[in-house]
Amino acid sequence: MPKQVDHHERRESIAHALWRVVDQQGWVRATMREVAREAEVSLGQLQHYFSSRAEMLAFAMEYASEQTSRRIREALASLDQPPHPRDVLRFVLTEMLPLRPDSRATSRMNAAYVLEAMHDPSLRQQVGAGMRDGRAMVQRLIEEAMSDGQIRPDCDPVIETDLVLALTGLAPLLELNVIEPQAALAAIDQHLDRLFVL
Amino acid sequence: MPKQVDHHERRESIAHALWRVVDQQGWVRATMREVAREAEVSLGQLQHYFSSRAEMLAFAMEYASEQTSRRIREALASLDQPPHPRDVLRFVLTEMLPLRPDSRATSRMNAAYVLEAMHDPSLRQQVGAGMRDGRAMVQRLIEEAMSDGQIRPDCDPVIETDLVLALTGLAPLLELNVIEPQAALAAIDQHLDRLFVL
Repeated sequence: MPKQVDHHERRESIAHALWRVVDQQGWVRATMREVAREAEVSLGQLQHYFSSRAEMLAFAMEYASEQTSRRIREALASLDQPPHPRDVLRFVLTEMLPLRPDSRATSRMNAAYVLEAMHDPSLRQQVGAGMRDGRAMVQRLIEEAMSDGQIRPDCDPVIETDLVLALTGLAPLLELNVIEPQAALAAIDQHLDRLFVL
Repeated sequence: MPKQVDHHERRESIAHALWRVVDQQGWVRATMREVAREAEVSLGQLQHYFSSRAEMLAFAMEYASEQTSRRIREALASLDQPPHPRDVLRFVLTEMLPLRPDSRATSRMNAAYVLEAMHDPSLRQQVGAGMRDGRAMVQRLIEEAMSDGQIRPDCDPVIETDLVLALTGLAPLLELNVIEPQAALAAIDQHLDRLFVL
């Protein structure tokens, strides 16, 4: 089905164009017209793939989280198997922070998307569901580490999950050069060192 | 100078109108035209007070951080004097999170502002300077608590400051109802309980 493949590839290349616009010019400028220009397609062609800005954003975000998951899977595959849960959390966190060009683009997309989702019920549903899935994944990891004795059994896994996810709050400090990447990694390591006893 | 006072009051009332637009409709819709409508002034009158959207945003943000500082000062004045640094940090953090209507409005403003600042050099300077000031204030507090024996002396005050500020990363989880306000407060308390030994 070559036509189907082309359609999917074209949507992905449009998603990349959208990321570049968001990354370089900001969210407010990420209009259908501007994305079409960046993707080197006509506005009519773009509308053939996405009937609205919201639909384009929804696809780009889903694709971004697939890409992030893929980067995490690849990074984890390069570690000793099975990877230590501390290393897994460290990878997940660094992939969510603007520490490298690709994670920076998705981190910016994500921040913009959260803002947009507050006022758009269907985006809100999608972003909220994605966050809840991510949160559940981190909590499972922490609960397993607790039963394996890697995290103290008297910890509250709900609170520890929220504290790990809160570390994404380093993103604005990194974006505005208030702290350096090295400082963000040191903070993450300090937090995980306290959490894990083994 | 009644005219001066009027001018200042009018700018403040426009800032409030901007917050309402950002809070209720989102950042993308916070145009000069929409803010003028919300503030019940003509576009021409609005332009008399702010020559550009960027100037309006800069004022609204500065005013928001003044208001946040004022709320924190008032809250701290109601505590035993001098207040315990743990309580100070707890107040600062809860004022930065969308836990109540007024802090929710400034938290949204702030998130939007960070995004906008990435692509606007003068906003970037202003937001970055504000964050650096806030960060320095928190670090001083932590260093004092270390010399007073309230925080273990072997802590790294730079890392601990970044970890405290990272807790603002709970904001998106709260905004999209992934966690409840009670859970955010429990996470903050857990973190501060670990940090303070006295």
